Amino acid sequence: MATLAEKLIVAPGSKFKLGKLDADRTFGVQKAAAARKLERNIERLSELQYRLYAEARRAVLVVLQGIDAAGKDGTIRHVMTGLNPQGVRVTSFKVPEGEERRHDYLWRIHRACPEWGSIGIFNRSHYEDVLVVRVHNLAPKSVWSKRYRQINEFERSLSECGVTILKFLLYISKEEQAKRFEERLDDPSKNWKFSAADSRERDYWDAYLDAYDEMLEKCSTQYAPWYVIPANRKWFRNLAVSDVIAGVLERMKLEFPKPATDLSAVKIT
Amino acid sequence: MATLAEKLIVAPGSKFKLGKLDADRTFGVQKAAAARKLERNIERLSELQYRLYAEARRAVLVVLQGIDAAGKDGTIRHVMTGLNPQGVRVTSFKVPEGEERRHDYLWRIHRACPEWGSIGIFNRSHYEDVLVVRVHNLAPKSVWSKRYRQINEFERSLSECGVTILKFLLYISKEEQAKRFEERLDDPSKNWKFSAADSRERDYWDAYLDAYDEMLEKCSTQYAPWYVIPANRKWFRNLAVSDVIAGVLERMKLEFPKPATDLSAVKIT
Repeated sequence: MATLAEKLIVAPGSKFKLGKLDADRTFGVQKAAAARKLERNIERLSELQYRLYAEARRAVLVVLQGIDAAGKDGTIRHVMTGLNPQGVRVTSFKVPEGEERRHDYLWRIHRACPEWGSIGIFNRSHYEDVLVVRVHNLAPKSVWSKRYRQINEFERSLSECGVTILKFLLYISKEEQAKRFEERLDDPSKNWKFSAADSRERDYWDAYLDAYDEMLEKCSTQYAPWYVIPANRKWFRNLAVSDVIAGVLERMKLEFPKPATDLSAVKIT
Repeated sequence: MATLAEKLIVAPGSKFKLGKLDADRTFGVQKAAAARKLERNIERLSELQYRLYAEARRAVLVVLQGIDAAGKDGTIRHVMTGLNPQGVRVTSFKVPEGEERRHDYLWRIHRACPEWGSIGIFNRSHYEDVLVVRVHNLAPKSVWSKRYRQINEFERSLSECGVTILKFLLYISKEEQAKRFEERLDDPSKNWKFSAADSRERDYWDAYLDAYDEMLEKCSTQYAPWYVIPANRKWFRNLAVSDVIAGVLERMKLEFPKPATDLSAVKIT
């Protein structure tokens, strides 16, 4: 039977129609069971992260993408909060500014890559350069269309050098997004999250879907696969992301390193 | 009755004799009660951190110092693991190298300061420049002796600009350090933490105590106080650090920000 991760992964080169995906889908997982399983996954992650940190020879990069209010911040909060912050670095990529604009678009991405032994989390990423940039014509097609290949080569190189890459696209329906924006307007503890600019992006919904489809088709690779997460239900989203990451870390066979020299002769005086 | 934080703080300008401190001291706190209290403190911290993040106008800087094996990493692991890594950045300062050596000693420190809305944790810090540097004569006295004032002025400026600074010195006895080093030698899952160089630093124990004493006397200020934590008992150390941080964050009166514009007229279409 296929695991949850296997159901969520985008097979390299396959056509994807995000607009056809049921964002409520939960693959038969029940909410109560999901809560227990999330807790177990966070414990697994915490243990695996400690070994990754002790080993200090490889790194893990988690990329989160999704339309506004899809739950990128919420996923980090609910899935990553059990991790030791000493071994985690979250980078939120905004509109490039200052010296970021004086370099190629992958420059700031490379700079933010996690160091050996740690987990890097990208809240948005270089994929904005084939998403928002494409949707709003911030660069000509001749420029952004080359980026799929550039990104693949960049990620391949990272992966060959020891960075395990996992990419998640959180997908909510347009109705769910409206509901979440309304909550941000109504709940005083959420007002700070509301942005009128975000809500205007709704006019570009279909253009974003096209851009996501091409990104998924071209950039889900063996060495850096995309997972598409139906994210209307936050509990399922959290479970699914934690499940995939824990599974991938387990397959890395992380072990506490053996000492380089013989310790048996050492005396503490 | 004095709070735990009040008992642990070093009054500005007071003489301190670290060598006279009982590193087993727990101020009457019981171990079982401490575990429950630590859990509550982590929940408080998590909630306060979220408000700090939402407010995004101020930052918090936690400095951790202590001799090898005093528990700096363990404190981060046990106290900070409940925090959302999106709002926390841990920086471990090692022996300066590369471009760090081509700048003054505070340059890399300033660069690593937490951005508004976040908590920065320094695992070692600029205080190494009046500790290891002094103990091993890595700079002449005429250089390091000016640093107490430089550090105070630097921290005062940070604090005036909106960074709340808390500094913790974790203190273990020489016997406890030997015990912890032995554990690192004996336990295969801890071998990776053992460093022969660390164990050789034991020869300088008294010189470190003198350096700590002067640091505490000169650099515990109203705007950036030192707290000295008896740290032989890990459970007490974790409780004490979490208690101080949670208390300080509570006094910051962090609130979810009010919207800049009237949201009642906004319609999501």
